[in-house]
Amino acid sequence: MALLRPVLYTIGLLLSVIGAAMLLPAVVDAVAGNPDWQAFAISGSITLFTAGSLTLGLMVKEVRLDLRQAFLLTALSWTVCAAFAALPFRIAELRLDYADAFFEAVSGLTTTGSTVLVGLDGMPPGILLWRALLQWMGGLGIIAMAIAILPYLRVGGMQLFRTESSDRSEKVLPRPGQYARAVAILYGALTCLCALAYWAGGMTGFEAIAHAMTTLATGGYSTSDASMAHFDSPTVEWAAVFFMVLGALPFVLYLRIIGVDLAALWRDSQVRTFVVFLVVVTLVLGLHLTLTMGTPLLDALRLAAFNIVSVVTTTGYATADYGAWGSFAVVLFFFLTFIGGCTGSTSGGIKIFRFQVLRLFVDRQLQRLYFPQGVVAQRYKGQPLPREVASSVVGFFFIYAMGFTVLTLALAATGLDLVTSTSGAATALGNVGPGLGPIIGPAGNFSTLPDLAKWLLSAGMLLGRLELFTVLILMLPGFWRW
Amino acid sequence: MALLRPVLYTIGLLLSVIGAAMLLPAVVDAVAGNPDWQAFAISGSITLFTAGSLTLGLMVKEVRLDLRQAFLLTALSWTVCAAFAALPFRIAELRLDYADAFFEAVSGLTTTGSTVLVGLDGMPPGILLWRALLQWMGGLGIIAMAIAILPYLRVGGMQLFRTESSDRSEKVLPRPGQYARAVAILYGALTCLCALAYWAGGMTGFEAIAHAMTTLATGGYSTSDASMAHFDSPTVEWAAVFFMVLGALPFVLYLRIIGVDLAALWRDSQVRTFVVFLVVVTLVLGLHLTLTMGTPLLDALRLAAFNIVSVVTTTGYATADYGAWGSFAVVLFFFLTFIGGCTGSTSGGIKIFRFQVLRLFVDRQLQRLYFPQGVVAQRYKGQPLPREVASSVVGFFFIYAMGFTVLTLALAATGLDLVTSTSGAATALGNVGPGLGPIIGPAGNFSTLPDLAKWLLSAGMLLGRLELFTVLILMLPGFWRW
Repeated sequence: MALLRPVLYTIGLLLSVIGAAMLLPAVVDAVAGNPDWQAFAISGSITLFTAGSLTLGLMVKEVRLDLRQAFLLTALSWTVCAAFAALPFRIAELRLDYADAFFEAVSGLTTTGSTVLVGLDGMPPGILLWRALLQWMGGLGIIAMAIAILPYLRVGGMQLFRTESSDRSEKVLPRPGQYARAVAILYGALTCLCALAYWAGGMTGFEAIAHAMTTLATGGYSTSDASMAHFDSPTVEWAAVFFMVLGALPFVLYLRIIGVDLAALWRDSQVRTFVVFLVVVTLVLGLHLTLTMGTPLLDALRLAAFNIVSVVTTTGYATADYGAWGSFAVVLFFFLTFIGGCTGSTSGGIKIFRFQVLRLFVDRQLQRLYFPQGVVAQRYKGQPLPREVASSVVGFFFIYAMGFTVLTLALAATGLDLVTSTSGAATALGNVGPGLGPIIGPAGNFSTLPDLAKWLLSAGMLLGRLELFTVLILMLPGFWRW
Repeated sequence: MALLRPVLYTIGLLLSVIGAAMLLPAVVDAVAGNPDWQAFAISGSITLFTAGSLTLGLMVKEVRLDLRQAFLLTALSWTVCAAFAALPFRIAELRLDYADAFFEAVSGLTTTGSTVLVGLDGMPPGILLWRALLQWMGGLGIIAMAIAILPYLRVGGMQLFRTESSDRSEKVLPRPGQYARAVAILYGALTCLCALAYWAGGMTGFEAIAHAMTTLATGGYSTSDASMAHFDSPTVEWAAVFFMVLGALPFVLYLRIIGVDLAALWRDSQVRTFVVFLVVVTLVLGLHLTLTMGTPLLDALRLAAFNIVSVVTTTGYATADYGAWGSFAVVLFFFLTFIGGCTGSTSGGIKIFRFQVLRLFVDRQLQRLYFPQGVVAQRYKGQPLPREVASSVVGFFFIYAMGFTVLTLALAATGLDLVTSTSGAATALGNVGPGLGPIIGPAGNFSTLPDLAKWLLSAGMLLGRLELFTVLILMLPGFWRW
């Protein structure tokens, strides 16, 4: 109990946020005269009651977590929050069964964006707002976690970013509090700007706000079954490209820009690699579309930019069924599902910095082949790269590959075909959203999958969001013997 | 020229073996009264003439290769040998164009077993024997390379096996010569035993010899379009399972068995892991077939054992179209394509010892999460595992993944669909043989692919056979500046 007490107390605090957030769609539905407001009121009450019991019953003066508790909190909090966030989907007129409701909530909080709902265009505003809110809160949650918790847990090379949150104040322990507040304000401000841009592009106010929330969160929930294609507006699409990329950059860097240093973003090698990668892949795919399908070049570039940015930032909006763009595009999108954005952003996937470190690691191996004795010192972002960090990053790739393999096999065992299983596993782990193929591809939907597959994919989304290690460590006997 | 001289001289020696081997099908076809004997005689003459020019023109007293020359030799020799071995396919009545002929020769020498030929059952014996001979020689070549060259090049953790070839004699440099001779005799003896077993199972003498050669080589070329299914004999299938596994075990261990130590094989942790893995996967798939398709358990186990052993040992025979066994089987076979057998055998793929080292590596990462300071000494086969070796193995996985990604994208760009591109890239790199899907699956054939795809797959097979690093290092500017 001494182990769990501060963990459960903190989860209680988080649940109170979830519960309070449910009152927003309740109000919106009440104003719109939709009976779903009761579902949100009931869910909110249940959640707030649980939150109150936990916080009041387990009150601690100051939350101090040791390493083991931090791992437990990370894994438990997202799962418990999703379990409660699923209630409105179950209780509202949708009457989703719990497997679907949990899937939709997990997909929201993890900012994945895969959906089991069909007929979004005709749904009451409460449900649509709740989905957007889940992604928006999830996005903020993951930024906070990447700044405050993961570097401390040294998960998959995240110790590299320990310095980044502490390099302004030279205190012994980083003070994530002040960062978190500043980042939250920024996140809100960028969301407002994005909403304005969408509104200018032709969305209604409600649509603009809902999509802005899921854009900055690189989540991808839409208010229309046709996703962004519904709006058929190049302005909206380019705005989405811009803000999806912003959502996938390290948020702490924005603070530096505001604090005088305008070039900080571009000086960051992770950001530079990310942007250059997006541009190159967009050019390749755009040219490919023009050459093979005769799409006019500017349209081809817009289509390519939007869908590539959407997948690589792990947002998951669609403006077209790229499953119909020929096999090169399909294979390309399959591999892009794994990439992800920058660390400390709302995006998922393996993430750019890991590929950079991997590149250094492989370079070192190749050099060793002809300089057996030479130990070449390697640097990342101007700092020497510790071997532990390189190993940790490299280990992350394997855990990721293992998770992908096991999840794919499990999905196939539920009867899903090869393309659906592999792309489903990849999109869940990467928190991207759409998969490939006719069922779960950009033109498809997750509603028809068997329940077991939905549970597996929910687990996959949580695993991916928690950077796998955080969950796997709980399964080691050594963790509990500690 | 000083760089190339001993390299080209050695290639000349290898070509003289290839050229001499062409005389065997020439004789067989001449006896059978088939005009193809001329094709083999002409090809043999061209090859022997080239071999003679190289060896006589560049004569060196004793071949001494430095590291760089060893890399060059490894990469060049397989490519040049395949280029000459392709001649009979081009000149014989088949009249394959050179892309097809080269593909077939590379697939043979690398013991892959993918074929572009249709109508094997009616082909003259010379061509069938030549295909079997190519795999048989390729198998011996890869064992020799794994014993004598790769450990010295320290490619992908192969330095681990440097001791293995030198632990009998305590000389400074291992003497691979004596091993190579002993291994070759053993390889021949096992091939004879396998042929006897096949003959007892109902094959003709010619079929038995041809299949025995491609079994021990874990190659998979057959004399029938239906592959092993043609013989419809459980005896043949179980014999094939047994000898395919033997082909995928480290050949040096057989020497120890003969030299008194009967338990050496089972004491070897790589062998144990390999066999246990095969048994477990066979049981899982056999039960799955019984439960989902109602196949009687014993038949299901035989089908599972044969096809799993065939893919994991990278042989590539088929007795059934496992593409029709449901999606779990398809996904399972896709992942099995990457595994491979033991090092120092004729099998390809990533290989078991690398997975073992990877496991140790990941374990270490996980332990670090809760013992940040603790450095746990790790052991492989009772010896401490040097960090360099672990890093080298881990680097190999990434090069493999990168090769797979690039090859898949390139194949897709030639117009192949997702399943054909991914499984084609995997089967080529792993030197397995069949891919997945209706085109190149176990019931299909590589003949209908575009020429560019065949060139790409040929390159993939060579890359895989040469353990990737060996080729990639030639592309580094540093290699040439040395």
